[in-house]
Amino acid sequence: MKIGICGVGTVGASLISLIKKNRDEISRKLEDEISISQVASRRENPQCDLSGINITNDIYEVAKNPSIDVLVELIGGTEEAKDLVLLAVKNKKHVITANKALIAMHGHEIFSAARQMGVCVLFEAAVAGGIPIIKSIREGLVGNVITRIAGILNGTSNFILSEMASKKQPREFDEVLKEAQKKGYAEADPSFDVNGIDAAHKITILAMIGFGIAVEFESVRIEGISEIALEDIILIDEFGFSLKPLAVAFRISNGISLRVYPAMIEKEKVFSKVDGVTNAVLVEGSSVGETLYVGPGAGGDATASSVIADLVHLSRGSKIPNEGFLELKEAPTIEESSIETGSYIRLDVQNMTGVMASISSVLEKNRIGIESIIQKEVSESIARIAIITSIVNEKVLHESLRQLGALPAVISAPTKIEIFKS
Amino acid sequence: MKIGICGVGTVGASLISLIKKNRDEISRKLEDEISISQVASRRENPQCDLSGINITNDIYEVAKNPSIDVLVELIGGTEEAKDLVLLAVKNKKHVITANKALIAMHGHEIFSAARQMGVCVLFEAAVAGGIPIIKSIREGLVGNVITRIAGILNGTSNFILSEMASKKQPREFDEVLKEAQKKGYAEADPSFDVNGIDAAHKITILAMIGFGIAVEFESVRIEGISEIALEDIILIDEFGFSLKPLAVAFRISNGISLRVYPAMIEKEKVFSKVDGVTNAVLVEGSSVGETLYVGPGAGGDATASSVIADLVHLSRGSKIPNEGFLELKEAPTIEESSIETGSYIRLDVQNMTGVMASISSVLEKNRIGIESIIQKEVSESIARIAIITSIVNEKVLHESLRQLGALPAVISAPTKIEIFKS
Repeated sequence: MKIGICGVGTVGASLISLIKKNRDEISRKLEDEISISQVASRRENPQCDLSGINITNDIYEVAKNPSIDVLVELIGGTEEAKDLVLLAVKNKKHVITANKALIAMHGHEIFSAARQMGVCVLFEAAVAGGIPIIKSIREGLVGNVITRIAGILNGTSNFILSEMASKKQPREFDEVLKEAQKKGYAEADPSFDVNGIDAAHKITILAMIGFGIAVEFESVRIEGISEIALEDIILIDEFGFSLKPLAVAFRISNGISLRVYPAMIEKEKVFSKVDGVTNAVLVEGSSVGETLYVGPGAGGDATASSVIADLVHLSRGSKIPNEGFLELKEAPTIEESSIETGSYIRLDVQNMTGVMASISSVLEKNRIGIESIIQKEVSESIARIAIITSIVNEKVLHESLRQLGALPAVISAPTKIEIFKS
Repeated sequence: MKIGICGVGTVGASLISLIKKNRDEISRKLEDEISISQVASRRENPQCDLSGINITNDIYEVAKNPSIDVLVELIGGTEEAKDLVLLAVKNKKHVITANKALIAMHGHEIFSAARQMGVCVLFEAAVAGGIPIIKSIREGLVGNVITRIAGILNGTSNFILSEMASKKQPREFDEVLKEAQKKGYAEADPSFDVNGIDAAHKITILAMIGFGIAVEFESVRIEGISEIALEDIILIDEFGFSLKPLAVAFRISNGISLRVYPAMIEKEKVFSKVDGVTNAVLVEGSSVGETLYVGPGAGGDATASSVIADLVHLSRGSKIPNEGFLELKEAPTIEESSIETGSYIRLDVQNMTGVMASISSVLEKNRIGIESIIQKEVSESIARIAIITSIVNEKVLHESLRQLGALPAVISAPTKIEIFKS
């Protein structure tokens, strides 16, 4: 198996080093010789030894190189990457990519071209780094109808929320973000991570393969974590929950729902204990019930481990398993009014008699039960009321929040954070 | 793909029902038609609809049936199952089995026969029920040198230890075992589960595929959970650990260690939160670091889900990936003296002056540090001393326990429970 690698950033450098170091071991598992025929790189100082490898600075040269069987796309971005991958496919090369944005945005077009040319496009490394989640869903759980997938898919966001809730010293978002940047867990511009775009790309891919349907990235409802206040983190902890940056896809008879949002998970659940930059994916199948996969979501070696899994998959001559969903119609997105959820509500109110009665009255009118409640004094004149609601229709919840916000005693817009039930 | 199924117990009945119910969905994923050509069953009342299926009460008839491509072995046991599987292989049929004892005890012979005949023997369902752990290790983490595998592989034992440590009401082993039997989580004769044999079969299989070596089931050091005392469960909890029924395989340069034993895990670790009958496997790879897989370890539908995964694997024409290890020599088992571990020690002692000094002196002489200590009064004359030690050589630990037990003030043999570090 002769491979060409485009892009020698963190993952590319790890991949090249790993293949050089473990060539014999990998070849044994492949039952085939593996060699790197060409690498495209424009870097002055790649972080790996490229000696003995044919280097070019033209990525498209690799896609056209007749001696290459598999192109590994590690350049990132969407437009140039798409052109590169389509050119490789056109030249009858299999493609392996770690590019989540590419697959989430242009997956259909790419898979369709690959199917036509009889080649395979694999992307284990695109979601949850080193966790073999694509393979687990597509092959390990193939005997199931997948009903729900929930992931902690963005390490930066998970690190920030975990640290904000640190037992030792709870801290504000901005302060933790700075620490994450120092540690290399967050980019200088962290918006893709903390605003949920990155996780949205990943859940789009998982929904595609899990549900076997065409999913539009645009249909993901996205809510980031940058608005999370420290006072909510502390109250959520007191209620016995952890706050996690979730990406959730589920389907019911009349459609699918795709969503990225910070959600609460009961502390007793294993899923709630996945802290720091670690990723995790919960997959719910018709036969198996719940399974959970935990591991590193990023890092050169971990991600390269997934690229190698795809290489071995190709070499073992498995038939292309990833395009059954192309024949299926797009599923409709579920309306807010058919989603049911429990929720946390926080209200800062003027400390006067009758406040609790007016709040209760709004909830009662909307048939929202109160599971538990915490009241605290913020100052002499201001009280903070936090409520865990019963399971309630999402549309009703939003309408109730509007009504609560309109109460004369309520000082600012109510805060709402939903509960994820597993 | 024409399959024959031998054995219609819980898993067989689930498998037949699932295939009948989801035939179209499974066929689509297989890109092939699936049909059940023959079923061997001696049951009067199988728990599934067998109408339209050719039934025999002779399992060997299925193995010889020329119209069958794949034999699914679900009869259990080792001797008859081995004959059945070898006969099927001789007749050039692929085999799928859920039989952990069979693979752990006779894997080498079976794989060797399969290799000779050019057929495949798959066993995803043999370890950790519905969790696709075999596929994850063998394919998903193929780019790694696997250094350690640790599993909570026996649901019965995990249920018992979880319940013994229940916050609401800690209970004795015997009492919880009775509850487990009532709930169907433990057999009438629970010895295979609570004595660690079942977990030993499973870790043997995981070590085989993870390390790519020939592993003898007999080399597993096995310690069950039936000797665990409630007082230790409570102290372990106070020290901030959970007690889990672990099966651990690791390798260092000079050999491998295979072991089943109750071990302590820090409560902050995700792994320590896997409670009840749920299974989990922690896999440590050279590139990926730690990954964790959690899910149902038993149950008809969950196990059938893994059988279907193997069926799809076969139909996709993947080359046989499971026999690389046959060419490797057996690895030597590591001596006790090269294993290092932290440990919990509990001593019941006569409540007299100088006791603590004599205990400390033994530990100091053996260069064992004390990480933390809890002392409690059991009665006016008896005190209980529990210690968490520093990391220490296992042989030294055993020698120290012997010395501690010989101290005049120490009433009964010291209890030792090791700490699993992840």
